[in-house]
Amino acid sequence: MTVQANMTDTTPVAPAALAEFEAEFADQLELAADAQDLLFRAARTANSFSDEPVTDDQIRAIYELVKYAPTAANSQPLRIVFVRSDAAKERLLPLMSEGNRVKTASAPVVALLAVDNDFHEEMPKVFPHAGETMRDSLAQNAEGRAAMARLSAGLQIGYFIIGVRAAGLAAGPMAGFDAEAVSLEFFPDGKHDVLVVVNIGKPGENPWFDRNPRLDFTEVATIL
Amino acid sequence: MTVQANMTDTTPVAPAALAEFEAEFADQLELAADAQDLLFRAARTANSFSDEPVTDDQIRAIYELVKYAPTAANSQPLRIVFVRSDAAKERLLPLMSEGNRVKTASAPVVALLAVDNDFHEEMPKVFPHAGETMRDSLAQNAEGRAAMARLSAGLQIGYFIIGVRAAGLAAGPMAGFDAEAVSLEFFPDGKHDVLVVVNIGKPGENPWFDRNPRLDFTEVATIL
Repeated sequence: MTVQANMTDTTPVAPAALAEFEAEFADQLELAADAQDLLFRAARTANSFSDEPVTDDQIRAIYELVKYAPTAANSQPLRIVFVRSDAAKERLLPLMSEGNRVKTASAPVVALLAVDNDFHEEMPKVFPHAGETMRDSLAQNAEGRAAMARLSAGLQIGYFIIGVRAAGLAAGPMAGFDAEAVSLEFFPDGKHDVLVVVNIGKPGENPWFDRNPRLDFTEVATIL
Repeated sequence: MTVQANMTDTTPVAPAALAEFEAEFADQLELAADAQDLLFRAARTANSFSDEPVTDDQIRAIYELVKYAPTAANSQPLRIVFVRSDAAKERLLPLMSEGNRVKTASAPVVALLAVDNDFHEEMPKVFPHAGETMRDSLAQNAEGRAAMARLSAGLQIGYFIIGVRAAGLAAGPMAGFDAEAVSLEFFPDGKHDVLVVVNIGKPGENPWFDRNPRLDFTEVATIL
């Protein structure tokens, strides 16, 4: 994949900026309005970060929350390297797209989110009642395994971004990096593919672009 | 993909059931504890549903919340058919894996979550400052486009499942269905692939299996 695109989401939108119809729908939800804002409406993809550190406890807290969200057959194929030290940053930065280097350098922590293509080895642990059968079946079906791994890893990346926001931090997800090089540099066994790199921290100066338009409900959905 | 697996997540876990270390980490988050439970810890994949209907307003409210979460270049490739009428259910049920038919029949609404393989046509709308260039570039790169579409659709499916829970509803995501047949039956243009089918409603009788184990932080993550 050579598409050099960031996950954009680009000025925090206060509840007052919502269209009237959106505010009405927001009232339909059980989740409190401030939590809706924290996770979805006011949250934005940050393009700069402050110096405030992200602690090990915050990193752990994100994982201990989002680990509970569902994956196919509880397979949990996502693996994560958190890059924080200067030494690790120096290995990462040259492999990022040029347009992403300054912001990635400014982020207190950068998460490399990878799919474990051999996730099936863990099935006896994560899916006890049928894990060995599933492991052996997946071992012989590389194509089905890859599709299952990519899909569940995608879900887990979605959960992870929500988890970063739940920690009161800004996430800056990016797809603009040399995926093969980053994967081999940080997962040298050759069995992992880094899918998304996420800058994490408190927003810095001028952190947001204007938010891009979202598709309307009627453009994406039908009720039959 | 012929892997016939459900997204398992299987008894609601009250906060008191958390390991002590998990409760400590939960305090590190900005998101309120009850919201953490609603979306992640107490939420479970339901295997049966009550008769309580899911309203159009609830369906809209889910979308109007989760539409704000980020995708690659704001591409938003997810498309959704909500199956609620008896007529639509009758078209769907024979295409589900046998083990999924009873629960899917019992769900007040079933969401078919599909990726639009021609999502690039919308880039001028969703990514105004460079959308035409990106559309044309993606039009000539079917492989890169497919990878971008699958990844962002995966993220959006993750957001959607969290959105269903935000509405106070249980989600039952499944990968066990005839994907090609469901895609063609409900997206007859041949340009969409249904990736996940999600039962939605209030939980019914005996709705949960025991929860399967989650991988420990140290099994999936490293801090460098």
